[in-house]
Amino acid sequence: MATAAKERLASLASHLASPSAPKPDWPRALEALKSAFPASQLSLDLATREKHGQSWGSLLPPSPPAAVVHALSAADVVAVVRIATSCGIVLIPTGGRTALEGQFTATCCSPLAEDSWNGVVKGKTKPGDRPTIHVSLSRMNQVLALHERDFQAIVQPGIGWQGLNAYLAERGVKLAFPVDPAPGSEFGGMAGVAGSGTNAEWIQSMEVVLMDGSVIRTKGSNRARTLGIITELTVRLAPVVPLKVALTSFPTVQQAVSTVVSMLSSGLTPTSLELLDGTSIKGLNLAKLLPDALPEEPTVLMRFSNPSEAVNQASLETVKAIVQREGGRELRIAKDDQENEELWKARKSQYWSQQLLIGEGCRTLITDVCVPISRLAEFVDRSEVLVHDSGCIAPIVAHIGDGNVHRAILWRGKEGETTRPREVETLAKKLVELALELEGTCAGEHGIGLTKRKYLKAELGDSTLALMRTVKRALDPLNLLNPDKVLFPEGEEQWA
Amino acid sequence: MATAAKERLASLASHLASPSAPKPDWPRALEALKSAFPASQLSLDLATREKHGQSWGSLLPPSPPAAVVHALSAADVVAVVRIATSCGIVLIPTGGRTALEGQFTATCCSPLAEDSWNGVVKGKTKPGDRPTIHVSLSRMNQVLALHERDFQAIVQPGIGWQGLNAYLAERGVKLAFPVDPAPGSEFGGMAGVAGSGTNAEWIQSMEVVLMDGSVIRTKGSNRARTLGIITELTVRLAPVVPLKVALTSFPTVQQAVSTVVSMLSSGLTPTSLELLDGTSIKGLNLAKLLPDALPEEPTVLMRFSNPSEAVNQASLETVKAIVQREGGRELRIAKDDQENEELWKARKSQYWSQQLLIGEGCRTLITDVCVPISRLAEFVDRSEVLVHDSGCIAPIVAHIGDGNVHRAILWRGKEGETTRPREVETLAKKLVELALELEGTCAGEHGIGLTKRKYLKAELGDSTLALMRTVKRALDPLNLLNPDKVLFPEGEEQWA
Repeated sequence: MATAAKERLASLASHLASPSAPKPDWPRALEALKSAFPASQLSLDLATREKHGQSWGSLLPPSPPAAVVHALSAADVVAVVRIATSCGIVLIPTGGRTALEGQFTATCCSPLAEDSWNGVVKGKTKPGDRPTIHVSLSRMNQVLALHERDFQAIVQPGIGWQGLNAYLAERGVKLAFPVDPAPGSEFGGMAGVAGSGTNAEWIQSMEVVLMDGSVIRTKGSNRARTLGIITELTVRLAPVVPLKVALTSFPTVQQAVSTVVSMLSSGLTPTSLELLDGTSIKGLNLAKLLPDALPEEPTVLMRFSNPSEAVNQASLETVKAIVQREGGRELRIAKDDQENEELWKARKSQYWSQQLLIGEGCRTLITDVCVPISRLAEFVDRSEVLVHDSGCIAPIVAHIGDGNVHRAILWRGKEGETTRPREVETLAKKLVELALELEGTCAGEHGIGLTKRKYLKAELGDSTLALMRTVKRALDPLNLLNPDKVLFPEGEEQWA
Repeated sequence: MATAAKERLASLASHLASPSAPKPDWPRALEALKSAFPASQLSLDLATREKHGQSWGSLLPPSPPAAVVHALSAADVVAVVRIATSCGIVLIPTGGRTALEGQFTATCCSPLAEDSWNGVVKGKTKPGDRPTIHVSLSRMNQVLALHERDFQAIVQPGIGWQGLNAYLAERGVKLAFPVDPAPGSEFGGMAGVAGSGTNAEWIQSMEVVLMDGSVIRTKGSNRARTLGIITELTVRLAPVVPLKVALTSFPTVQQAVSTVVSMLSSGLTPTSLELLDGTSIKGLNLAKLLPDALPEEPTVLMRFSNPSEAVNQASLETVKAIVQREGGRELRIAKDDQENEELWKARKSQYWSQQLLIGEGCRTLITDVCVPISRLAEFVDRSEVLVHDSGCIAPIVAHIGDGNVHRAILWRGKEGETTRPREVETLAKKLVELALELEGTCAGEHGIGLTKRKYLKAELGDSTLALMRTVKRALDPLNLLNPDKVLFPEGEEQWA
């Protein structure tokens, strides 16, 4: 064989060799982990592994990892990436573990739970046949720098938004991270699922470890998603300025939506705009969280943050006129900071108070769709029929300015249950189908993870999914970084 | 040879075959273009090709394409993509052609200009050795849908922001695209370079044709850049509400910046915040654009858009107090809409009026760096020294809320000149180096194109560039879509 041809074949062979992962070698990976990390950074005990394999917000069966590495630095993350890739072990980054869509649930390696779950083909994987390493970023929880005049903080991925706000308040800094996600959410995960409120673009740049062990910096974007492990973030902060909470209710959802559209059209810039339906308000009334009971009908809660009380007042005068014109009840405006907090409790306690609608054993599936605001009233009305037909109870909280609707499907669970009743699954599916029909999306702000994969084809089409797969393959050719999230394993789409 | 081994080799061979582009076959491409498009959509005459090969805003030598295809639909774009890939011809999408950094200048095929230019290795390419097709999106200039209640318009890539705003005004729709880029900019290009003002995220989703001929949809992002050809965009619109323009000047840039930081810290939300330096104001005074001359010192122009005149008034009271505290001159507030326009002219006419500083034959290099706002005063002061030492004149317009500084380097050009004087090049380079030293970026909003490639390594590092190359290669394996932009040809970085 000529030398040129030989060289060509050798190059071909290495080309082919590179994209297939080595056969998982757990004993070797375990040895390497023990050499690389002290015992304080490596959890192998079942209790910790079980805790890390559990997703509180979803009903997915637990999937404890084979080991948890507690990273303290980007160098630690690079080390664990190198061990995972050289030993063929799946690697899943975790943090606050508040994800609702199975983002850190392993699809292939559940040594305790024998059950399969939605979207994963039953019987195709044996428990424990593919061990997983969790790399937890939670101990990387420092504020690295604060640039007050730039309205920026540089943080590690394991600090939560509450931790950052406490840090700022303790130092008397009049800045805060103003978005209001679930308690316990950490910045790494918030950037990973592109979680939002009414507000966009709060993550300005990131340091990310890729699966080839390189460390990159992104500029002006929160779009890295599952393609690397975030080790540092530059977070935008907002000034802390006079705040005012107000609420009112409406005979119909249609009127509530019209009011909100008129508010936004008039140039008002509320920092929050939340819609609670009558069922949600019923839960709040049962919880007696507010000094007096609210009318159990569609209610809009709003928050304004403006340079002065005068601007807040002028803004609320505009709101009052709009509410009156649209046929709403009288606008209730918090008198002072204490009442601001009291009224806002109606929003923040909705998740817990709604459980009183069912009582003991209440289970919850939080759904998360988004529709154009012009179709929001139609979504609420038509989904009301679906809920009624299902026999379920499903109160609404909607981030109405975004068209993002959460119906929490409630039911009384049985002890030890790890699957959802069929009617809950069916209702959740019908809500997504309705959102897609109304030109919406299957995932407003909680991401795709495992549970929403089955809707992406209808929403984005084959070409877009193929593009996503091409990019994933380019950046994670061994498919070891949190595999099977967002996209199904190739060829398994048809089982969804 | 065993069958399995044969199959493997066949697969290896196809693996190797796919990523190398076919040798350019221009005669076949030309035939295919003539079959696919009527004469009205295919320009082969030199005058049109020369016009399309010319970048008005930069001094790059002209690079006329071998043909211009005027696409009328995504299907046309798919057709030209297929011809380009099957015949190995480079394809460059164009639109308003206002790009400043050589974004649509071919690096390899300049049949008229013999000269090479910055960043491209002299003598490595022969004129005309690699013909290029321009696919112009400018005739795809329709508004496809208007969703007033969703604050959205769906547009084709060839409509400009001015065209969209005229469309809305003609119909009495109280919405507008509020960002204020260069006249003639079209949405495809604006999304392509992620152009901005003080505002983020105005492009909400896109339809994009990829180089494999597939058509994808992106969600919530303007991040496709040069990896596909944009054929449709969903644009966010803002309500048209009471507007107020105000301006004031300061003894020092430091005071101007402090005022702006205090304004933003107080929760004010101006829609524009522009800094003009004394030299810029001198040009405006020469042009006699304003009823009376302004003091030739650092001047801040601001625009507010609020729900009511009352809110505008309350906001401007806050501004007044801050300006006074920081030692600024009296705040001049436009009395009415006519004066709003008059004062705003100071911003919009700055580019033309500054040419009076040089007079006839004035040439301009618009530079575009961005620094953290906390370093902005330092950037202005230190760059003043660089400008002085260079002997050039370089007035400033800065989008001060973003830290985005444009110095326009002015000089008197010679007839027919296609290169810049050495001192202009040197000053432009030093401005970027200073911005990077102050933790800024080499490109605020005009993109990288050809002319900023040489700074990316220092700014982003090798790992990030390698990642960008990996993604580019995954989506454009033949490297035929606008090659050599943003990234150098492999191995040519050292020539930069």
